[in-house]
Amino acid sequence: MSNWAAILAGGSGTRFWPLSTAARPKQMLPLAGPAPLIRQTTDRLGGLIEPARTLIVTSQSLVDQTRRLLPTIPPENVLGEPQPASTAPALAWATSVAGKRDSEATVLSLHADWFVGDDAEFRKTALRALEVARRHDALVTVGIEPTRPDTGYGYIVPGEDLGGDARRVREFVEKPDVDQAERLIAAGALWNSGLFTWTAERFFAETRSVAPELAPHLDLLEAGNVAEFFASVTPIAVDVSHFERSQRVACVPGRFPWDDVGTWAALGRVRDEDPAGNVLVGDVFQRQSDGCVVWADDETVVLDGVSDLVVVRANGVTLVTTRRRSTQLKDLLSELPEQIRRLTE
Amino acid sequence: MSNWAAILAGGSGTRFWPLSTAARPKQMLPLAGPAPLIRQTTDRLGGLIEPARTLIVTSQSLVDQTRRLLPTIPPENVLGEPQPASTAPALAWATSVAGKRDSEATVLSLHADWFVGDDAEFRKTALRALEVARRHDALVTVGIEPTRPDTGYGYIVPGEDLGGDARRVREFVEKPDVDQAERLIAAGALWNSGLFTWTAERFFAETRSVAPELAPHLDLLEAGNVAEFFASVTPIAVDVSHFERSQRVACVPGRFPWDDVGTWAALGRVRDEDPAGNVLVGDVFQRQSDGCVVWADDETVVLDGVSDLVVVRANGVTLVTTRRRSTQLKDLLSELPEQIRRLTE
Repeated sequence: MSNWAAILAGGSGTRFWPLSTAARPKQMLPLAGPAPLIRQTTDRLGGLIEPARTLIVTSQSLVDQTRRLLPTIPPENVLGEPQPASTAPALAWATSVAGKRDSEATVLSLHADWFVGDDAEFRKTALRALEVARRHDALVTVGIEPTRPDTGYGYIVPGEDLGGDARRVREFVEKPDVDQAERLIAAGALWNSGLFTWTAERFFAETRSVAPELAPHLDLLEAGNVAEFFASVTPIAVDVSHFERSQRVACVPGRFPWDDVGTWAALGRVRDEDPAGNVLVGDVFQRQSDGCVVWADDETVVLDGVSDLVVVRANGVTLVTTRRRSTQLKDLLSELPEQIRRLTE
Repeated sequence: MSNWAAILAGGSGTRFWPLSTAARPKQMLPLAGPAPLIRQTTDRLGGLIEPARTLIVTSQSLVDQTRRLLPTIPPENVLGEPQPASTAPALAWATSVAGKRDSEATVLSLHADWFVGDDAEFRKTALRALEVARRHDALVTVGIEPTRPDTGYGYIVPGEDLGGDARRVREFVEKPDVDQAERLIAAGALWNSGLFTWTAERFFAETRSVAPELAPHLDLLEAGNVAEFFASVTPIAVDVSHFERSQRVACVPGRFPWDDVGTWAALGRVRDEDPAGNVLVGDVFQRQSDGCVVWADDETVVLDGVSDLVVVRANGVTLVTTRRRSTQLKDLLSELPEQIRRLTE
């Protein structure tokens, strides 16, 4: 009956380009403070889940770097995916590792690249979610109280009361438009953060009953044939394979500031803005500029008289774009000439 | 009766910051092509004025660098000003050096940091101006046919016909407003480029008669006491000390494209623009951007969806400003924190 953590730490490194790269994706960057997000994430679990029971799932190419960044985590707890396959196979693997070492494992699943504004409240909520997973033998998702009608998040519509603050989930709504988001919030819907809990036993029972993309291949995992498992499964997100299909899903509310720090434009939600609404990180001087996000990695950036720009100097590249367009960097990256893309691989 | 050149090559390096610096001002930069402007300037004199009769006046701190950049110019022809004192004292010094070596010297005075679009036409005009200086025993200025009502230039209003295309100068008008500039152009006024000619004899005769800022100190120059001369004179531009006051001023027209390349915003006048009106120098990729000037010095700049910006990455600094504000960089530089200013000294 011990608590385990499964931290998802993959990522292709496109959203914070040119600072983030495939070789140094978002969770490796100190986006929300002086330490890399992944270290803030493991530090946040302090007192809640032991390092020996904290598992990290990352890509093969990031295993060494992840181990170096997290010296308190046992090296064998950093799992390198043989190939990317979305979140359900990764969490099945981590849950299987936990379950083999501890038949009564309850798993807290989280991402390495979140901002959390109140670590104590986060731990309180996580503990509560772990308890609910055991008591109700359910897959549990933590719902964050929305602070704006964000159209980039999924929403949880709570249902039947389970006692305490736990509820069944009536439905999930993925990325609504603004009007729908406002109606959802007015009706008490919560953001689906991706902070989940389950017992290993329940996770695999549900996998067998609702996730045909994984179920036929669980024997491979059981036999320790991870490469074959990843090659056999159909890539799918655990939100879809398990949470949207299972009849045993509960939610508990999370009352801590939370952000998935998805874009340069969002940096102002996790870092202080100056009085003119600029977020300036590194050696930056601004004059008569407003609404800008600037990241100066080991060089200097000077802004004069500009508005609503994103300016990033990192890895030998300076990106200048608008806040609005900075949320669609994938489009830009797909058009970049090969020799520039190679600079930031 | 030989022709000499006096090339003014000082400059504080503020207008093209952060690419230009006090240690590497505008004339040292390849702003208008692959070679530094100062080398384009001396190359342009080829066949017109011998390197042995080409003098360069620069600041003490730039003498070595200037000599290295111009290996064909005799080192003793690169004159380092003991202190800055505007153009009249510098040209008095160069004219005195020419006059001592050659009592019949005629001097062509020009700046090291101009763009000239037609070298052959430039040489033809310079030769004509040198002849007019001798024939009419006058101070001669070359008037460029204006291509726009520029408010940053001075204008020459031609007067009495002197034969050929030479005219007396009726008056000089400094930096008119747009309306006034348009009226001047309609009436046949020309840009006062600063391309001047005079005989050494006439230059010093006029200095004695109209330039009290210099006249009492000419003995120091004659005695070779340059430091004392610069310390004694009142700094003044030769346009004011000589051309605006003398009764012996003529002008000849110059029909070559000419630009003083005064600001980042003006770079499009001396370099090709892409179809969207961007001037991109170095390793630059732009997507859906227009009207921008970008200079990428040994790193890469990527623009996405921005308009009318100036972006310069050089000397460890990235400047992002608007085209309009890029013409007032001095204001910005005066407010820069010391540690950033020090990066580009």
